[in-house]
Amino acid sequence: MAVYTHLSADDIDAFVSHYGVGKLVSAKGIAEGVSNSNWIIETSAPDGDSERFILTVYEERTNTDDLPFFLDLLDHLSAKGCPVPRTIHDASGAAYREIEGKAAALIEYLPGVSIDRPSVDQAKAVGCALAGIHLAASDFSDSRVNDLGPAGWRGLLQQCDGAALGEIDPALPELVDAKLGQIERDWPDHLPTSIIHSDLFPDNVLMLADQVSGLIDFYFACNDMSAYDLAVAHVAWSFSGGGGEFHRDIGDALIEGYESVRALTDQEKAAMPLLCQGAAMRFIATRAYDWLNTPAEALVTRKDPMDFANRLRFYDEAGANAFPFVQQAGTANR
Amino acid sequence: MAVYTHLSADDIDAFVSHYGVGKLVSAKGIAEGVSNSNWIIETSAPDGDSERFILTVYEERTNTDDLPFFLDLLDHLSAKGCPVPRTIHDASGAAYREIEGKAAALIEYLPGVSIDRPSVDQAKAVGCALAGIHLAASDFSDSRVNDLGPAGWRGLLQQCDGAALGEIDPALPELVDAKLGQIERDWPDHLPTSIIHSDLFPDNVLMLADQVSGLIDFYFACNDMSAYDLAVAHVAWSFSGGGGEFHRDIGDALIEGYESVRALTDQEKAAMPLLCQGAAMRFIATRAYDWLNTPAEALVTRKDPMDFANRLRFYDEAGANAFPFVQQAGTANR
Repeated sequence: MAVYTHLSADDIDAFVSHYGVGKLVSAKGIAEGVSNSNWIIETSAPDGDSERFILTVYEERTNTDDLPFFLDLLDHLSAKGCPVPRTIHDASGAAYREIEGKAAALIEYLPGVSIDRPSVDQAKAVGCALAGIHLAASDFSDSRVNDLGPAGWRGLLQQCDGAALGEIDPALPELVDAKLGQIERDWPDHLPTSIIHSDLFPDNVLMLADQVSGLIDFYFACNDMSAYDLAVAHVAWSFSGGGGEFHRDIGDALIEGYESVRALTDQEKAAMPLLCQGAAMRFIATRAYDWLNTPAEALVTRKDPMDFANRLRFYDEAGANAFPFVQQAGTANR
Repeated sequence: MAVYTHLSADDIDAFVSHYGVGKLVSAKGIAEGVSNSNWIIETSAPDGDSERFILTVYEERTNTDDLPFFLDLLDHLSAKGCPVPRTIHDASGAAYREIEGKAAALIEYLPGVSIDRPSVDQAKAVGCALAGIHLAASDFSDSRVNDLGPAGWRGLLQQCDGAALGEIDPALPELVDAKLGQIERDWPDHLPTSIIHSDLFPDNVLMLADQVSGLIDFYFACNDMSAYDLAVAHVAWSFSGGGGEFHRDIGDALIEGYESVRALTDQEKAAMPLLCQGAAMRFIATRAYDWLNTPAEALVTRKDPMDFANRLRFYDEAGANAFPFVQQAGTANR
């Protein structure tokens, strides 16, 4: 939630001139995205039509080697009718250019607002849109390893030593000790995979009333289990109040929406309690790492890892009872 | 440069519903304004036309008793053809409402970009626009005292004790000691007054090529000497590189543009060296106060008071030579 790079109007004007989208008439830095700097810009074509775009400048956290994957994926999904912003290509066809020594891309502006507390209908629409992406990406030719899978969580958590974790919350080291190994051991390796968004929080979804008008911020997209992506959304959307209160209706609506487009297999259903615990651990790991490594003078608000510790405990205790699936002997307890 | 208040889409939607401007279709927090939180929002009318606005939520620093003055002034100046955003009034005619317990207003969105390094033609246009405001406000019925005049600077600087000022820069306490009393003593009390913007930095001006498309952020506007407003712009626009390098051509262009609309009196011309020193002291005072009172974890980047210490020294040394006026015996040295 910050603009890390200072760009002058001249910088942006020069950048935009490579895109054949008319002249720059407005540029405002927006408080969106935690890893990159973003501007909403407006251009005016010679016929007087105005168009809006998002200009994203990639900061250190985004590996520019991954940019062709992220940006081509947007084009692929958008061409298949998914509510995803297109990448605007410059006059030479390039998906990104350099500005002030950093990679930068021009992205389609989509209408819609991010919803803090989704309704059941909105959650259903989000589940639909997520499944739509999994199907539409099936013939995308590029791939990217998920570097924030279980090995990635362990790597991050090992860089936060136990004492430091305990400073965040005295209960955190024990929770991590108790659960990380177990999640790793039981982590499924046989479930259907696809390209996944892997960070589908409410602030990465734009809505107009009950319709999803945009899924944005694909900078964690990768190849991994489709059901894990649904688990991330379940963990991200179904709780309020610091992760304390579970909204069963929202979780069920996400799954119902998802299954209206792509049915989950029995194995996927059975794995959901564990996948949700893993998703919670993923956000504990990144938030704890960021908490301990964010300089106090940084321009971002640190996010509390304990929100996800609470959710992890919830899924651990609730097991299959957190989900709408009819229990079948021998699968629910695996 | 931050969004201090969290508003959900529902909050903004409910707010906008009082304005008869259609339905909310987009809201993005923007990194603009240092004292308030701002969003660029888009609404869609039943006929499908979309309109944009700036939503401003007033944080502690803005006294809501002053809001009628600021918001009516925008309407007055806009109605007179000045490039100033109109205040949008709600269905009951109110210029502002409450949102989450804070005052908030819907302001016209104007195109244009803020220029880091103005050209001579741009500086001339800014000077013109500033004089246009001084003239257009002459029949505005409300008034507001400048609480950031010399007494205000002293008040702020006395709240920063000398040792603290010295931590900012060892040379600062001596500069303040040497100059503040002198500026106060010589401060003119007989020059023409008007409503002034009093904070016309480049980031408060929107431009399209060489035209001023918007003067914004009138939240320091007040009644004071017109020439002091021109002095603030001179101090704000004519330097680069941390206040070290003076651009005579820009300063002259500002004054030339200003005088093309409203001629300065001989007394105003003679007072410019002192008024510019005062303007520099005003920003030393507020920046030093903010520097020493901004918590390290705050979401704003502190601005270096020494940029304006350098400019104050410059005006002190250059005297009348920093300006394009033909020197007249007995006036230049007063």
